[in-house]
Amino acid sequence: MPQDSRASTPTGSPELFRQGMRRLAGACTIITSVAPGQGREGWAGMTATAVASVTADPAQLLVCINRSTWAHSVISQSRVLGVNVLGAEGLQLAQRFAGGVPPEEKFTQGEWLTATSGAPLLASALASFDCLVCESIEASTHDIFICDVLGVLLREPGGDPLIYFDGAFLADRPAN
Amino acid sequence: MPQDSRASTPTGSPELFRQGMRRLAGACTIITSVAPGQGREGWAGMTATAVASVTADPAQLLVCINRSTWAHSVISQSRVLGVNVLGAEGLQLAQRFAGGVPPEEKFTQGEWLTATSGAPLLASALASFDCLVCESIEASTHDIFICDVLGVLLREPGGDPLIYFDGAFLADRPAN
Repeated sequence: MPQDSRASTPTGSPELFRQGMRRLAGACTIITSVAPGQGREGWAGMTATAVASVTADPAQLLVCINRSTWAHSVISQSRVLGVNVLGAEGLQLAQRFAGGVPPEEKFTQGEWLTATSGAPLLASALASFDCLVCESIEASTHDIFICDVLGVLLREPGGDPLIYFDGAFLADRPAN
Repeated sequence: MPQDSRASTPTGSPELFRQGMRRLAGACTIITSVAPGQGREGWAGMTATAVASVTADPAQLLVCINRSTWAHSVISQSRVLGVNVLGAEGLQLAQRFAGGVPPEEKFTQGEWLTATSGAPLLASALASFDCLVCESIEASTHDIFICDVLGVLLREPGGDPLIYFDGAFLADRPAN
């Protein structure tokens, strides 16, 4: 993993950056994990949009997660995570996992399966990825987790994605 | 930048992974760069969806780019890049920069501004980010470029995003 020296100190304002990033539409996902040696009682999860494909062969993806979150703490310990890509009907789950309910109640809605890694995967997701973290990269407030994909669950084709754009879920919006 | 040993060899099939990733909706962006010491004749660009916010303070984002592309070659040399977030009306530009026209004709459509870094930014983008690469991370066929954001251009509020989902641009589709 080559690392270059820093080319500059950024001069952009954090607030302007946030405003710009609100215009980068993101697929809503629920990132899950499980505390080491625990079952359902050790599940953790959060809504996130900062997920990207890295390479297909070997299958790898990355997720950026704020270090102040509970899910980050669990992933750091267990080194496993699930990425669940929500369809439009997943709006309530997205709100729930974004902090709408206490942590211990998050998984009481939806059908959750235990994957090979131990992470919970959502049966109704458009697609789910069962992952092992292979690298973590510190970046200020966040960690970038680069993950090997152990397995993929695909729902049957069809269904619209749930998208977050400009501070709102697009499923909330009237069609044009 | 801590690096963990690899936890496993991934066992997921590349084809299944690609199918799953088709269901991760992505905001369409055009990633641009400029060859060192050149002006407009050194511009390069490509359509991409693998862009994610990393941290707001300092402002950083990341982009995953296939190492076989011309844009990757230019970015690797110049260490600068622009991220242009397309609105729904940017469909033709997205197709153009995805290989619809020869490289030397790509920038003949749209109003392109030269940013502080030298990278071209699209005046009509929902938002554009002028970036300096601060770290590159090799990941099989791709490089992950972690970038400091030098500046942000925001278009006035409003406008729908251009989204790529399941092999199609959502702007192509009839409203529900």
